[in-house]
Amino acid sequence: MKVVCLSGGGGGAKIARGLHDALAPGELTVIGNVGDDLEVLGLNVSPDLDSVLYALAGLDDEERGWGRAGETWRTLESAREWGGEGWFLLGDLDLGLHLVRTQALGEGAPLSAVTQRLAETAGVSSRIVPVTDDRLRTHVVTPAGTFRFQEWFVARRHEDEVDAMVYEGAEGARPAPGVLEALEDADAIVVAPSNPYTSIHPILAVAGIRDALHARSGRVVAVSPLIGGRAVKGPLDRMLTRMAGGTTPREVAGCYEGLIGALVVDRADASAEADLPLLVTDTLMTDRATARGLAESVLEVLA
Amino acid sequence: MKVVCLSGGGGGAKIARGLHDALAPGELTVIGNVGDDLEVLGLNVSPDLDSVLYALAGLDDEERGWGRAGETWRTLESAREWGGEGWFLLGDLDLGLHLVRTQALGEGAPLSAVTQRLAETAGVSSRIVPVTDDRLRTHVVTPAGTFRFQEWFVARRHEDEVDAMVYEGAEGARPAPGVLEALEDADAIVVAPSNPYTSIHPILAVAGIRDALHARSGRVVAVSPLIGGRAVKGPLDRMLTRMAGGTTPREVAGCYEGLIGALVVDRADASAEADLPLLVTDTLMTDRATARGLAESVLEVLA
Repeated sequence: MKVVCLSGGGGGAKIARGLHDALAPGELTVIGNVGDDLEVLGLNVSPDLDSVLYALAGLDDEERGWGRAGETWRTLESAREWGGEGWFLLGDLDLGLHLVRTQALGEGAPLSAVTQRLAETAGVSSRIVPVTDDRLRTHVVTPAGTFRFQEWFVARRHEDEVDAMVYEGAEGARPAPGVLEALEDADAIVVAPSNPYTSIHPILAVAGIRDALHARSGRVVAVSPLIGGRAVKGPLDRMLTRMAGGTTPREVAGCYEGLIGALVVDRADASAEADLPLLVTDTLMTDRATARGLAESVLEVLA
Repeated sequence: MKVVCLSGGGGGAKIARGLHDALAPGELTVIGNVGDDLEVLGLNVSPDLDSVLYALAGLDDEERGWGRAGETWRTLESAREWGGEGWFLLGDLDLGLHLVRTQALGEGAPLSAVTQRLAETAGVSSRIVPVTDDRLRTHVVTPAGTFRFQEWFVARRHEDEVDAMVYEGAEGARPAPGVLEALEDADAIVVAPSNPYTSIHPILAVAGIRDALHARSGRVVAVSPLIGGRAVKGPLDRMLTRMAGGTTPREVAGCYEGLIGALVVDRADASAEADLPLLVTDTLMTDRATARGLAESVLEVLA
């Protein structure tokens, strides 16, 4: 069974790990968001791709929910003391990866090739591929102004209300090698319970992705990131209320109109109504076992 | 009293610290070697400048003789695990500086401006200036081939005999702002007990430096890095034997012919003969106190 997962960081990395555990080696391809990539301290950082990589390699800090387990912060502290920017938290172990990636990109390797090499180095049998090798940057339009994604999310603690999103570079970005083929060949396509605006829409904004999904919509299922109308983590409920008018499965499904055949929702939302089939299960992923359980439920529906 | 010190890393950083301690704030300018600078893991590393900076800021590891005290190696270990080069040891604290410098250089700042900013950040009252902002790279010609300096020194453990040195880029390199002025204005110029071939000659190879020193040679004194004909550390004695025919003060002075007015030698070499005045004192610097003692002896002679 060939499965593709469209994923951001947090909840995306969790379900990616669940799918990875539920499937046979090589069956899973994760197409990752790069809209929240950034340059910090001169390094190329891909937070969403790395969250997926760390989760699939078993290197992630499950408790903190981001970054690596056993992380330390000596290099960043030193950089700060020398006058470097310190607003974006980069641990020592994490920095080792960023250094290797930045050097490879600087030598001309595409992000997809670098990501594949990193995954292989970590012994990850699933495929992790950035949606595009081209530059794509998410900006957040708020009443206080337009901010780069991480500036809004991290530095401003995503406190500003969001009026709109801008995916800079998306119109000219081409899918990375293998992305469209993976979508065409997939027996099932899972849209992760990531924030649609910040994690999935930038993927969909890349030329050809939306059409490819539309053509396979019968095999595409999205997992709602809301439980009882509330975001498990992050500002999605506030964003949906403001930009879509509500936080029920109907508004979540509306984020993927014409692209998905069904929406997986939590038991807390079992009584909701929507214009497409709702599949009800437990969607809260508290650890690897529950992530695998959710992945298996989703795959059962799709099989 | 305005004092300039021409310096490499190890012994150079030690006497620079001694001079820094012996002089009033602002009196010392250290002109540092950049011939052994390198790019590693995509970062711009300036080992000699950093050794001087760490020594003057009191951040150096006196026991190990290089790098920072209390250093750890987490980021480098991680980079190695991700397939990055790990042959050149970069500690976590050290990397913080390299990140900040590399980012600043990438944004177009000259190395001299970055170095000055770093020294100010560390509260160092002496001036540390690279001999040039231009690219200058030392190569080592050996029977086994020609190697980049750090490749020969670190990766090949400076085991190859040396036939000649090449200072790539020196002919086109201009002195960094303030370098020639510092040499012209100095009441005393101290050539540190660094390896002449690997640390001082690349400084002298920059256009104008040799002439500037020659014009002030009566006020220039070199401190011999040899004690009883042996290098305190490193391959200098073997290099001198092969390239200059001996390891007495005569051959050391020959490295600076026409540029120095006197040579400071250790008591172990008191009976040696040379074509210029030999000043005899204890030259072994085992800690900051002995480094300051040596610096004071040198300054006394020059005063």
